[in-house]
Amino acid sequence: MSTADIRMRGFTKRTPIKTLLSLIKVHSQLLSAEEILIVDSCGRILAQDINSPTNVPNFDRSAMDGYALDAESTFGASAYNPLMFKVVGEVTPGEIYEAVIQPGEALRIMTGGPIPKGANAVLMAEHAELFDDQIQVLEAVTPGKHVGQIGEDVKKNQILLKQGRFLRPQDIAVLASVGLKKVKVVRKPEVELLITGNELLKPGEKPSGVQIIDTNSVMLRPLIQRDGGVLKAVLHLRDERDLLRRHLSDSTADLICMTGGTSVGIEDHGPTLVEELGELLVHGIPMRPAAPTGFGLIPGSFGDSKIKIFLLPGNPVSCLSAYDYFVGRSLRLMGGRSEEWPYRSKIVKLATKISSQIGRSEYVRLRIENERAFFIAAGGASILSSTTQADGFLLTDEESEGFAEGEEVRVWLYDEY
Amino acid sequence: MSTADIRMRGFTKRTPIKTLLSLIKVHSQLLSAEEILIVDSCGRILAQDINSPTNVPNFDRSAMDGYALDAESTFGASAYNPLMFKVVGEVTPGEIYEAVIQPGEALRIMTGGPIPKGANAVLMAEHAELFDDQIQVLEAVTPGKHVGQIGEDVKKNQILLKQGRFLRPQDIAVLASVGLKKVKVVRKPEVELLITGNELLKPGEKPSGVQIIDTNSVMLRPLIQRDGGVLKAVLHLRDERDLLRRHLSDSTADLICMTGGTSVGIEDHGPTLVEELGELLVHGIPMRPAAPTGFGLIPGSFGDSKIKIFLLPGNPVSCLSAYDYFVGRSLRLMGGRSEEWPYRSKIVKLATKISSQIGRSEYVRLRIENERAFFIAAGGASILSSTTQADGFLLTDEESEGFAEGEEVRVWLYDEY
Repeated sequence: MSTADIRMRGFTKRTPIKTLLSLIKVHSQLLSAEEILIVDSCGRILAQDINSPTNVPNFDRSAMDGYALDAESTFGASAYNPLMFKVVGEVTPGEIYEAVIQPGEALRIMTGGPIPKGANAVLMAEHAELFDDQIQVLEAVTPGKHVGQIGEDVKKNQILLKQGRFLRPQDIAVLASVGLKKVKVVRKPEVELLITGNELLKPGEKPSGVQIIDTNSVMLRPLIQRDGGVLKAVLHLRDERDLLRRHLSDSTADLICMTGGTSVGIEDHGPTLVEELGELLVHGIPMRPAAPTGFGLIPGSFGDSKIKIFLLPGNPVSCLSAYDYFVGRSLRLMGGRSEEWPYRSKIVKLATKISSQIGRSEYVRLRIENERAFFIAAGGASILSSTTQADGFLLTDEESEGFAEGEEVRVWLYDEY
Repeated sequence: MSTADIRMRGFTKRTPIKTLLSLIKVHSQLLSAEEILIVDSCGRILAQDINSPTNVPNFDRSAMDGYALDAESTFGASAYNPLMFKVVGEVTPGEIYEAVIQPGEALRIMTGGPIPKGANAVLMAEHAELFDDQIQVLEAVTPGKHVGQIGEDVKKNQILLKQGRFLRPQDIAVLASVGLKKVKVVRKPEVELLITGNELLKPGEKPSGVQIIDTNSVMLRPLIQRDGGVLKAVLHLRDERDLLRRHLSDSTADLICMTGGTSVGIEDHGPTLVEELGELLVHGIPMRPAAPTGFGLIPGSFGDSKIKIFLLPGNPVSCLSAYDYFVGRSLRLMGGRSEEWPYRSKIVKLATKISSQIGRSEYVRLRIENERAFFIAAGGASILSSTTQADGFLLTDEESEGFAEGEEVRVWLYDEY
């Protein structure tokens, strides 16, 4: 791709969105594994199969509060023929009762307590009437009743969880239950944000004159986290070619998002720098906003692996949509997650029509009221407040002219609960 | 409630689940506000209305890369009547061009650049042909074209976001755009986990003999975080009444989860301690597992506010279901969130029947395969692996006898994407 001719000339050619998506898929390979503490592993992706080194439990235990006894010696007990058992002691979880329970004896036992020798069943506390040191048994108990057997939860050598698993709260609890301390998970992709623009002030500063606040870093930070990335650095840089070049060359990230300077203006160094340092695979897509989005690869400072670089438009709505359509997907793929959006969706009737130009996908913001979706007209790539008014969004198909009023559409709901 | 009679006797009376839920609602009041940095506020609940102190942008700006000029001087331009404009300089975002643009002059301008005096429109770069220091204009431009006006995104004094708002990535970006640095959000409920049981080892230790690993703290930690709580302490304590009493008396948390020791066994100090120190509102519910769940209030070490205390069964499946049904809800209410479950749900056909005893709600774990839900028979409150095999769960109604095979049910999906 020759870049000399695009500055101040517009995009001569736009890459179809599908092509960009498949390039992202090809280049967003699964990252290597790292070992972390199980207690910190919820939400991570398992990078190994886990076999259990042990039975859980590793002893027969009581599933109830009650009395451990020999089941056979209760046979024949009924309301008409109550049998009396001598309570010889008690055992609570974590203790061992050493003596052997004899027929006619019972051991008071708490839920989780180890079944003593000589006993093979537990009579529930509610079904026994206590008289001094004896209990009255009014019905027979079957062998094994209320006894949790060795390995009833997890069997030794059983495959507990498989590679690729998204670890949920109960999953990491099971991993801990077999005595494991650490686990191998897919490494989190490391992300650097290069926020470019001479007009930008850092978040927290006061806008004044013709200076405006960088809001993209504020917005991208939680999105990167949601998609399993870890933000290593946020750099606010002036539109100076050498400065930008140095930062790109020195990067050790897995992925760089460069916002601003991605279009065809004279200060738009992004595309030409990527081409100079590596390979500019895509520049310009048929999507509105976010048309000046770019994607490329540059050499990493470490070894062979290449750094994925996304050129995101500086306008905040463009930046949001391009992040969500492309960068988030790349991060999720590298981290071993589903490439699909994490957003919930909802089928809703359109209260207004939506026009879209054939050959271009529109990122449409929608407000939902009484199960009807209203198009938010306050358009423009720079109108960030259009996304705060919106409950969700949709992307029109490149082949579509839009939707009629009353048509049902799938709206993707911005994160919220 | 008299407790002397419940030890080793079973629950004489169970509190309906609806009653427990409404007690939770009454006692889980919204917490006070705290001021935090906007960049850290994503996912928090806004505790104030926010009015914008400024216009965004605070100057007229270009919405395109192109040429700023006086629109009227382009009137009459066409392919048959091209007009030439002299390019007098350029302006990029963050710069000010001081001179006044005269009719017949054009200023090269980048997206976001301030419109100079004398100009009221921008001609897109793609529509101008450059010849040395002149551009050829082939069509007229209307006044205001591609000009983003003062306040087009946010108007000074406009209400930006209202109290109670769940802050999304774009919301905090808009807050930053108006030059705010900090924002008041609802304080996060502080939680203490008291894990009781003489048989328990800490996560990461090796199970041996009749000792087992505490898995409840591993599982509850990410759930508490999900529900907006902050885990202040995890304490593993022996079943010693004085020790437990001291920890309850000294607590400074908003909410305590005590796991284990909640039932009617002789080592079950939880219920009687809560009654002794404060008020035991509920002990025993018609839910399986999780029947020994309790809820009460004890005085806090600070001022008037009472600490909510949940007594959760030690068995992990019971602990998970009781947390999810009751504790998570309380945390969400205190933090200003929706009391509803954060889980996604799905209507699925049952591949197997589900039996439920009238008068009791069953926490049923289900595996979903080809859009059909399979009941996971490996029941029992202690079988944690039943929840790792499951994709989701449902709770049967107290009045229901269960569901027939082929019936459609709503399954709540355990967190995953």
